[in-house]
Amino acid sequence: MRAGPSQEEIRRHNLGTLLRFVHLRGPASRATLAGALGLNRSTIMALTADLTAAGLVREELPRSPGRRAGRPSLVVRPESTRVYVLAFDVGVDRLGVARVGLGGEILDRREAARERGPSGPSDPAELVGALAAAARSLVRKAGRDSVCVGAALAFPGTVRRADDQIMFGPNLDIGDLALGEALSRRLGLGIPVSVCNDANLGALAEHERGSGVGCDNLIYLHGDVGVGGGIIVGGRLLGGEEGFGGEIGHMVVNPGGRGCACGSRGCLEAEVGERTLLAHAGREEVPGTAGRDAVRAVVDAADRGDIVARDALHRVGTWLGWGVANLVNIFNPGLVVFGGTLRDVYLGSAAQVRSVLATGALAAPREKVRLRTAALGDDTTLVGAAEFAFAEVLADPVQVLARLRAPEDAPVTST
Amino acid sequence: MRAGPSQEEIRRHNLGTLLRFVHLRGPASRATLAGALGLNRSTIMALTADLTAAGLVREELPRSPGRRAGRPSLVVRPESTRVYVLAFDVGVDRLGVARVGLGGEILDRREAARERGPSGPSDPAELVGALAAAARSLVRKAGRDSVCVGAALAFPGTVRRADDQIMFGPNLDIGDLALGEALSRRLGLGIPVSVCNDANLGALAEHERGSGVGCDNLIYLHGDVGVGGGIIVGGRLLGGEEGFGGEIGHMVVNPGGRGCACGSRGCLEAEVGERTLLAHAGREEVPGTAGRDAVRAVVDAADRGDIVARDALHRVGTWLGWGVANLVNIFNPGLVVFGGTLRDVYLGSAAQVRSVLATGALAAPREKVRLRTAALGDDTTLVGAAEFAFAEVLADPVQVLARLRAPEDAPVTST
Repeated sequence: MRAGPSQEEIRRHNLGTLLRFVHLRGPASRATLAGALGLNRSTIMALTADLTAAGLVREELPRSPGRRAGRPSLVVRPESTRVYVLAFDVGVDRLGVARVGLGGEILDRREAARERGPSGPSDPAELVGALAAAARSLVRKAGRDSVCVGAALAFPGTVRRADDQIMFGPNLDIGDLALGEALSRRLGLGIPVSVCNDANLGALAEHERGSGVGCDNLIYLHGDVGVGGGIIVGGRLLGGEEGFGGEIGHMVVNPGGRGCACGSRGCLEAEVGERTLLAHAGREEVPGTAGRDAVRAVVDAADRGDIVARDALHRVGTWLGWGVANLVNIFNPGLVVFGGTLRDVYLGSAAQVRSVLATGALAAPREKVRLRTAALGDDTTLVGAAEFAFAEVLADPVQVLARLRAPEDAPVTST
Repeated sequence: MRAGPSQEEIRRHNLGTLLRFVHLRGPASRATLAGALGLNRSTIMALTADLTAAGLVREELPRSPGRRAGRPSLVVRPESTRVYVLAFDVGVDRLGVARVGLGGEILDRREAARERGPSGPSDPAELVGALAAAARSLVRKAGRDSVCVGAALAFPGTVRRADDQIMFGPNLDIGDLALGEALSRRLGLGIPVSVCNDANLGALAEHERGSGVGCDNLIYLHGDVGVGGGIIVGGRLLGGEEGFGGEIGHMVVNPGGRGCACGSRGCLEAEVGERTLLAHAGREEVPGTAGRDAVRAVVDAADRGDIVARDALHRVGTWLGWGVANLVNIFNPGLVVFGGTLRDVYLGSAAQVRSVLATGALAAPREKVRLRTAALGDDTTLVGAAEFAFAEVLADPVQVLARLRAPEDAPVTST
């Protein structure tokens, strides 16, 4: 129960809000900004001047001036190549690292396949080494006057918010690891690396840049090997008491059903995950058939009329439908988004999912809910990591820049 | 994406915050308020003066002065007998109406039993008439200088936020009804009556005045005949896109299980609701055995060693445990609160609920979650309705008072 903000807090908030606007919506004129933020143009001018001085935005002529006569008005544009974050995406099958500019453009990226299980880099030191090497090569290619303002990593497991500790990563052999700290040390850029659940970041990305723009109550279901979830409630990511919120994959939809990596039975993950789909489709034992390509192959086969593949998708779609029905009743979301491998699974079983939803969800919350696939495709979690990495600078731009440019441990004479 | 507030908005916010503090925490000295709200004492003095002038608080000597020497400092006290709301609680078995003072004290109340089904007042006009008559008798007994600042009604069904329309009330024969509007007209006090789902209000009440004070992520499970839910996420009630959020009772925990009033099967409500408990206990057919007393009788019998009653609670406790496990995985709450008849059911099946939770919930979110019964007992939903009714005046106290005292349609000469 805090009182309203001080003048200085309001100024910082407004700086962040303006920067956030051009970061998410792209270059905008002062008039547009004044209208969108509910501020007068002289305030917008002052805020823009501060952000320009900090090197976060610049004002310039629009690239495609409008048809109006006279001098076109300047637009405020994010410094998208100079100011960037590092985004890491640790999947079960692949690693991704990207340099993402203010404004959201992926400026440069590295990808690597990972082998599963004991033969792959499940050794934490090896994983950290691979991620750091890729990131350093991206940083070396960045311009000398560019500045990295944050870093974040998407991880397919349970991550404690207070210290980014990984509590549970059943589909990846890494438990109890301070991954962010290790990676930050290895990077040596003097910036912390936040670690967050991949599906939570997928929800953030789809909310800010994907299917969910404008929808403040959405559920994102992410399939990798397991099934994760991210939930936006009233425009904010549901974290719960310690950041473990959104573990939709371990909602039990079929009590006594298939065994799950978490130790329980009949979890949504156990009933609709990749392994189950492949098992239903009789493809479990074929060597080399795993991951997104294997899931897509089942959907393609079903499209071509393969009865076993169709039946597999029907069975998985039934449980996915029950899961979605429960979530619709609990959350009354405006939107449910399917990402990762669930994107393909949903496309191959949409009729069944909708049919179960019609039975299992109450009419009132069911009526207006939309079901969609992730607009950001395979980049959902990576883009989410980038947005998470930008969060601090968007909340208090000038403060963060000042800290990055004058680190506390630097000698005073060095300036 | 709005800019920070104006000075006037901040002043109103601060007036509301101060009033909210003394409303929820009780009388407080200026020093306490300054510390709690992060404002200096002269600002507190100005805010208090405004609220005093509006008749919302008064300053006076503390009732039990401290031991310090010298003149005891004044405390700011809510005008708890002068400023009040009307709270309505429509249960399946009973009606409650109360006059609740600023500060939360129930000043006066009326209760009536309702008969179930076609013989009871399921006729909307009859229901509205009974509620209005009880409320008017409470208003007549209030002092002449007192002012009613709001009214709200707890309803055991699905209520659309935009227009308070009741969409679904399966355990009460009222569908598609503008209950709030009808009641407001019948009351004739010139104030609107908000209608809200009863379990949502229970969550609000337990969060603000019950077991959940200080816990910003909690789940409230309410048993009447059906099972409802209210969810607090990050300190705010989860409403979803249209206010239907929190329908935990229609989460399917047992696919293909017992039929539910909603048309589905195996919903939490169908597996743990009053009718199911009584059926398991072999008490379904005994005339006159329904409602809270019947549920308590089963729990009492189990306590005395009745094997059938024990078995009934064990079965119901198992499904309740699965429901809670799912919610713990999805929300990572700090607290789960059992209210209404589920209070007794939980007390009679806690060991089973905890045992299933240990299997069905992930270790990380399970570790710190607490399970508790509703601290407000049978008044949970009524207290929630009162808090909901106070929301507007707490958000903008002076504005609301001004509107109530000078209604637009009153002739100017009447003042």
